[in-house]
Amino acid sequence: MNPNFDAIGKHFVHHYYSVFDEKSKRETAAEMYHPTEALLTFEGQQFQGVGAIKEKMKAIPLDNMARQFTTIDCQPTVDGGVLVTVIGQLKNCSENDKVMGFTQTFILKPSNSSFFIHHDIFRLALHDC
Amino acid sequence: MNPNFDAIGKHFVHHYYSVFDEKSKRETAAEMYHPTEALLTFEGQQFQGVGAIKEKMKAIPLDNMARQFTTIDCQPTVDGGVLVTVIGQLKNCSENDKVMGFTQTFILKPSNSSFFIHHDIFRLALHDC
Repeated sequence: MNPNFDAIGKHFVHHYYSVFDEKSKRETAAEMYHPTEALLTFEGQQFQGVGAIKEKMKAIPLDNMARQFTTIDCQPTVDGGVLVTVIGQLKNCSENDKVMGFTQTFILKPSNSSFFIHHDIFRLALHDC
Repeated sequence: MNPNFDAIGKHFVHHYYSVFDEKSKRETAAEMYHPTEALLTFEGQQFQGVGAIKEKMKAIPLDNMARQFTTIDCQPTVDGGVLVTVIGQLKNCSENDKVMGFTQTFILKPSNSSFFIHHDIFRLALHDC
């Protein structure tokens, strides 16, 4: 197991959203996913591989996002990867009053000196408050 | 990958909570975890292996629980396992007015004809409503 799993997971989270949250960069976030094996479940819709994930990223109808993290939990996996769960709130910058909770789970796996996302499950907030 | 990942994940979720949510059975839920490798992160506290997880189960200060699921998302992993994320609400049956949101992520891995929990990250609801 990678002893730096916590730092790797948290660094990844901040990097991932710094790309995803900017509309002009969003589809390049797809390049962080494993080219063929990556699985994305986005609000219950399933996508596999960078091509399908990039198309989904382009289709997400959100402008630039502001995001706050409530918790980031990381665990090491036996193959040197990291399981990461994120809970937080996000705001579409063009709709000032709309704050949404979200939860997202990633599994990262090592590849050479870096990591690919192999699993990603995303859900917007969950119950009406 | 296991083609039945979705059914396996959803069946597991219902079985797991049917044990966990009954206070008299709760510590036996620990037997669903891999004896030595299982990692549990419970509200940020980390536990490894059945012994430590069973002690934690015994210490959880909740009576019988009622639970509603908002979403259960499953993905297959390359080793024949299942990644499961659960979002829902739970209620401590002895405190009628207290409904809490929660999110929980499991990774199940096959062992003979069954599955062990290898990873579990649990968080109670996330932001005040």
